[in-house]
Amino acid sequence: MPAFFAPSVARLIEELCKLPGIGPKTGQRLAMHLVDRPREEIRDLADALMDVKEKVGHCSTCRNLTDSDPCDICADGSRDRTVVCVVEDPSDVVAMERTRQFDGLYHVLHGLISPMDGVGPEQLQIQPLLNRLRSDESDRIEEVILATDPTVEGEATAMYLGRLLGPLGVEVTRIARGLPEGGNLDYADEATLVRALEGRRRVNLNSERQ
Amino acid sequence: MPAFFAPSVARLIEELCKLPGIGPKTGQRLAMHLVDRPREEIRDLADALMDVKEKVGHCSTCRNLTDSDPCDICADGSRDRTVVCVVEDPSDVVAMERTRQFDGLYHVLHGLISPMDGVGPEQLQIQPLLNRLRSDESDRIEEVILATDPTVEGEATAMYLGRLLGPLGVEVTRIARGLPEGGNLDYADEATLVRALEGRRRVNLNSERQ
Repeated sequence: MPAFFAPSVARLIEELCKLPGIGPKTGQRLAMHLVDRPREEIRDLADALMDVKEKVGHCSTCRNLTDSDPCDICADGSRDRTVVCVVEDPSDVVAMERTRQFDGLYHVLHGLISPMDGVGPEQLQIQPLLNRLRSDESDRIEEVILATDPTVEGEATAMYLGRLLGPLGVEVTRIARGLPEGGNLDYADEATLVRALEGRRRVNLNSERQ
Repeated sequence: MPAFFAPSVARLIEELCKLPGIGPKTGQRLAMHLVDRPREEIRDLADALMDVKEKVGHCSTCRNLTDSDPCDICADGSRDRTVVCVVEDPSDVVAMERTRQFDGLYHVLHGLISPMDGVGPEQLQIQPLLNRLRSDESDRIEEVILATDPTVEGEATAMYLGRLLGPLGVEVTRIARGLPEGGNLDYADEATLVRALEGRRRVNLNSERQ
């Protein structure tokens, strides 16, 4: 299809279509938009692309994406170093940080165990997590929160990590599953309702929080 | 939100979010994808971006995007130079070419008349079209097909051009409106049905084509 476009436009469409979720139509629309933008705007985007590859790397501690090592979160002395939240990828760190309710550290696995996609535990950043648990003498990690998605792969990864970390004498917890805030019992799928029932907690009338 | 990301990643997300149809979530997803790609792949995209701005321009005849002037279509001696199809933008040329049924020339307006968006006829490539109609002594243009979208703006533009070109002694036609191929009478909106009725043609039983 790009054959009908000028070669340079066709090439841009082709490159854009390599991006996830960008099909021929969207690629074409983006290219048409870009061709019409001022040169500086295109250069900004091209620079940002090259820049990210130059500057960004993995934090040697938590494996999160960072321009500096250790990353800002690991280097932040005010955070609780006894709790580590294990997540699938850097976007999940952002999602957690946005809540402003968690002030521990993170560990980014960069994937989930998925035999269907040929991803085993050895492809994930699990060894660095084990190293952290074993070596951190000064800041003893007391709890590891498994915050992978409540999907087949996320559960499999959480179960694998649970078994692996259990013997290390650290408390291993899993984020709660249940009805989402504002959710509707009527429309909830059965698996979610079962989880919500299983995870029920006693209403404590004597305290503000349950 | 990008504040939770490494600065170089945040900047890339910001640049990506300037593209049409790319919101914060998609921008983040694209950036995460790009960070994981090999350096050469990122460079290919960055190069294609810079390249398009260097190389591409408007064909001096038809105003379509092209790396060479005149464009491949205008330079193609085998095409019918007596018919010019007027379209809104370069994507429409591609859509027409894909049918492989039109072998005339094009004229790209680069927009439609839209007073709501402050776009008047003078912002469109209408003058070059007039110049073509007046100057082409050797290849006399006999028909101008108005192939703008059947929308309010497309109709307004077609009507404007119809009035403008009529006195020049050229045949001015408008693409047909009606039910789309494979469409369902039951589900068609009233305006489409009215157009389909208005545009009805006699079934000719003596010939293969109507």
